[in-house]
Amino acid sequence: MPTYTAPVKDMQFLLQDVLRVTETGVPGYEDLDASFTSAVLDEAGKVASEVLAPLNAVGDAQGCVLENGVVRTPEGFKAAFEAMKEGGWTALDCDPEYGGQGLPYLMGTAVGEIFVSANMAFNMYQGLTHGAYSAIHAHGTDDQKATYLPKMVSCEWTGTMNLTEPHCGTDLGLLRTKAEPQADGSYKITGQKIFISAGEHDMAENIIHLVLAKAPGGGEGTKGISLFIVPKFMVKEDGSLGDRNAVSVGKIEEKMGIHGNATCVLNYDGATGFLLGELHKGMRAMFTMMNEARLGVGLQGYAVAEAAYQNAVAYSKDRLQGRDVTGAKNPAGAADPLIVHPDIRRSLMDQKSFVEGARALTFWGASLIDRHHRQNDAAADGLVGLLTPVIKGFQTDKGFEMAVQAQQVYGGHGYIEEQGMSQFVRDARIAMIYEGANGVQALDLVGRKLAADGGKHVMAFFEMVKAECKAHEGDARMAPFTEALKAASKQMQAAGMFFMQNGMKNPNAALAGSYDFMHLMGHVCLGLMWTRMAKAAHDALDAGAADKAFYETKIATGRYYMARQLPACAAHLARIESGADPVMALAAEAF
Amino acid sequence: MPTYTAPVKDMQFLLQDVLRVTETGVPGYEDLDASFTSAVLDEAGKVASEVLAPLNAVGDAQGCVLENGVVRTPEGFKAAFEAMKEGGWTALDCDPEYGGQGLPYLMGTAVGEIFVSANMAFNMYQGLTHGAYSAIHAHGTDDQKATYLPKMVSCEWTGTMNLTEPHCGTDLGLLRTKAEPQADGSYKITGQKIFISAGEHDMAENIIHLVLAKAPGGGEGTKGISLFIVPKFMVKEDGSLGDRNAVSVGKIEEKMGIHGNATCVLNYDGATGFLLGELHKGMRAMFTMMNEARLGVGLQGYAVAEAAYQNAVAYSKDRLQGRDVTGAKNPAGAADPLIVHPDIRRSLMDQKSFVEGARALTFWGASLIDRHHRQNDAAADGLVGLLTPVIKGFQTDKGFEMAVQAQQVYGGHGYIEEQGMSQFVRDARIAMIYEGANGVQALDLVGRKLAADGGKHVMAFFEMVKAECKAHEGDARMAPFTEALKAASKQMQAAGMFFMQNGMKNPNAALAGSYDFMHLMGHVCLGLMWTRMAKAAHDALDAGAADKAFYETKIATGRYYMARQLPACAAHLARIESGADPVMALAAEAF
Repeated sequence: MPTYTAPVKDMQFLLQDVLRVTETGVPGYEDLDASFTSAVLDEAGKVASEVLAPLNAVGDAQGCVLENGVVRTPEGFKAAFEAMKEGGWTALDCDPEYGGQGLPYLMGTAVGEIFVSANMAFNMYQGLTHGAYSAIHAHGTDDQKATYLPKMVSCEWTGTMNLTEPHCGTDLGLLRTKAEPQADGSYKITGQKIFISAGEHDMAENIIHLVLAKAPGGGEGTKGISLFIVPKFMVKEDGSLGDRNAVSVGKIEEKMGIHGNATCVLNYDGATGFLLGELHKGMRAMFTMMNEARLGVGLQGYAVAEAAYQNAVAYSKDRLQGRDVTGAKNPAGAADPLIVHPDIRRSLMDQKSFVEGARALTFWGASLIDRHHRQNDAAADGLVGLLTPVIKGFQTDKGFEMAVQAQQVYGGHGYIEEQGMSQFVRDARIAMIYEGANGVQALDLVGRKLAADGGKHVMAFFEMVKAECKAHEGDARMAPFTEALKAASKQMQAAGMFFMQNGMKNPNAALAGSYDFMHLMGHVCLGLMWTRMAKAAHDALDAGAADKAFYETKIATGRYYMARQLPACAAHLARIESGADPVMALAAEAF
Repeated sequence: MPTYTAPVKDMQFLLQDVLRVTETGVPGYEDLDASFTSAVLDEAGKVASEVLAPLNAVGDAQGCVLENGVVRTPEGFKAAFEAMKEGGWTALDCDPEYGGQGLPYLMGTAVGEIFVSANMAFNMYQGLTHGAYSAIHAHGTDDQKATYLPKMVSCEWTGTMNLTEPHCGTDLGLLRTKAEPQADGSYKITGQKIFISAGEHDMAENIIHLVLAKAPGGGEGTKGISLFIVPKFMVKEDGSLGDRNAVSVGKIEEKMGIHGNATCVLNYDGATGFLLGELHKGMRAMFTMMNEARLGVGLQGYAVAEAAYQNAVAYSKDRLQGRDVTGAKNPAGAADPLIVHPDIRRSLMDQKSFVEGARALTFWGASLIDRHHRQNDAAADGLVGLLTPVIKGFQTDKGFEMAVQAQQVYGGHGYIEEQGMSQFVRDARIAMIYEGANGVQALDLVGRKLAADGGKHVMAFFEMVKAECKAHEGDARMAPFTEALKAASKQMQAAGMFFMQNGMKNPNAALAGSYDFMHLMGHVCLGLMWTRMAKAAHDALDAGAADKAFYETKIATGRYYMARQLPACAAHLARIESGADPVMALAAEAF
């Protein structure tokens, strides 16, 4: 069975050496020194290793069971959820006004990674709650906040997001769930929602559903949509729970993975709902949280890959098979461990260099969100808006691919469920789909984010890359990083130029290359991250850091990424520059 | 639930227009005219669509059950197996001397694709039997052949291959199963074998296990290994069944996919076995069938992708979501079908151009095996030996990737087991692992096949590519094909050169690039196939073929492959040329 150890040292390297958080001036970051953050991360790591990771396989094997309208979570989940509440983990980066601990989003992200790596399906219960919390926090009335937030911060009540219906996922303009205004100011909500993660379960007293529905008078398509709070149990004036609301579970889905999370069909039969935010502006309210939600899914991509990687490493050191072609490494044994073989190394380096690069990008993204929220930094907001589809789309594609590679290290044993590697692959698969399928992320990136605010944010990104390269001019040690980054960044610029020149005449010329652009930009982003990490590692070594091996490993891992992953950029550019013709050549009937 | 229709027209295009089988002079190919082959393929397609495909999801959901040492296959499997036997499908390309129909291996391959697409797990029962049949046919005594082959041709008895043990998969030199010679010339086989596909089930009267074991006196490692026939029930002189042999099922594995096939732990407790082929030359005997076995797995890679693709196409035409950015295509409806969106097209074209290219490569490989067996053509044997690791490794990697893409077209619905897309992904995953994990295929390709016979076969391959390009010089219609193919082939040559120049000093310099080389060569092979297919399509159009749209679609699909997939070759070359240093930089403890 897989095990998991939180990569606290790698996280600290990012926080202290690369982001240098305490020096940034972001309000709240002044507390994030090495000793405080270590205490938090170590403790989270302990909970993850001892409580959550052992339940991961249990959740997968048992799944959730629906009986008489009640969903039973897998054995041990309820106790683990209690432990999470008691440890205060659910309140970490929530508003102190409602019982939160007020830590920056960046710390929530670091701790979140640890919990997701240990048990992705379990962590979704609080992850969804956090999303609903954020929506109410941003758009709720004072009354609504006072009523719901304290209980959601503590996870005594959990939350859900209700968007999808059977006939509409991406295209929410098609949704049919109705909201009829009542005399008392509430609404009657009627309709069916599907794919509702954590939609029903036995771990909380109440569940607060946030539901997109159409109220009269809003017009066609997405314009008519409003967002509603629909509690499972009505909340009385005094805060105690009242009647059961008219929302029920139709069924729970049999899925490829994340079995420990209940994915529900929810039927709203005239359920009582309360408008959240402005009438007919529900899409806007829902998407205020989009960057965070998508960053959270991008995190799942590499967090699951991290857990899979750790186990692949252990297996490759343990399993004896074949001999090192350059001479036996374990002559006393019957064979050498797998890790001596160059192709196993290639696989482990692919995994390691991706995971660490993606963690850097995600942490950077989280710090930009903090800058936006805590310093009202519009440039940071624009930049993270640009990065979000890349963090979500690229990292979940690659995270899945790396989980598959980790499984492959096990050979035939990786295919046996008992080993747990299959679960990583099956769990990681959903992150490419939900919170906007990755094709939709690519569309968002190329169709919207590149041109947003007159292209300001992508220009700022290119300037940032340029400045990074310039800063290391003349430093021969950094040349392998800056040269590869420069070349990749130029390829990304060329792709952007191609879209500009051709997309006006024919939008398909840009959209046919959107997926490749998302990946091209993903590699440039990770190239930028590795350049920064290499610089920070060299600086630490120059300053006489005690753990030389750690920093040297960082540099070698970065060099691998630059040498072995950035060449993909040229291939993506070539695909992009082939334009729409090869993609759109066939009539639909020809497929 | 997924459906499947055999792509008979695409197959006929390969047989009649591209391979032009009846003109080749290969004995037996003279019968493979369009009318005969259509009759066979149509009939196979009917069985596949009506009998096998509907059982695919059943097999996945029910799996196999072990009770009191007996394995129960999923509902309907037994009746379907009877139908396969009665239809003569198990005997198609077997030797007429033992009841086979004597058709070329190429026809067995085409029919095999159809059955695998419809139900991969089910088809393994007869696939494994065919492998065991081939081994006995090649190495058995006349007595052994007479005893076992007729029943195996008819699949009244099925077969298995027993290689893996708990502590050894790839490294068979480590195996511990013992064979003790008996006075009567038989052997007592003792040991444990794992991952034995179709190792026990309820669809045949007897199961003929082929088992690798060590008999005394053979020396260390693989040299001491011999191959044995171990029947589940002993066969009496008159051919009737006698006592149960001392082989039993320890357990059946819970796997990620191919649930319909029983993957068994088999315990041999002094079971009676009979030497097959020469003593201590078991590895050689086993690997006589290696090209066929690996080609069969490479076929699974694209065959499952074909089935997944067909369903992705249907879904993309049916599901209404969003609008074509260039103008509504379904203005009367609430939205346009998914297939209008460029990124969905990109995905479908990736899938389609891969599957059709891989089919061409596999059929070509099968025709080379026929040339070897029916014309004793050593060059064909050498060439297919070179192509085999590519067909197995590249096609199963890509086949899995394409099944994932097909699943992605379904959005959230693709993650729900009920839709069947998850099964394609889970089933396809095993093909990257068994019959030599893909990393081992890459090792075989770069470490063995490139240099085999003084590099003769790879040189012949390059010459073949060169000749193909030369043949179309001056044909502007073919330029998009030959130019891309030439460039990719040069990149492959450069990679080979890099291995030669660096691999001598340091074998790791070659092995660190082996996986990329396998993929680079895969693209060159499919580029060659698409060049041939485009030429054949142009020829058919020039000759006034009735179905213009079909041939034009072929050309457009090929152009997509050349424009959008061959650029990957440059990236693979860059990875290869970065050498062993980035890959091997870290000490094992640094992971």
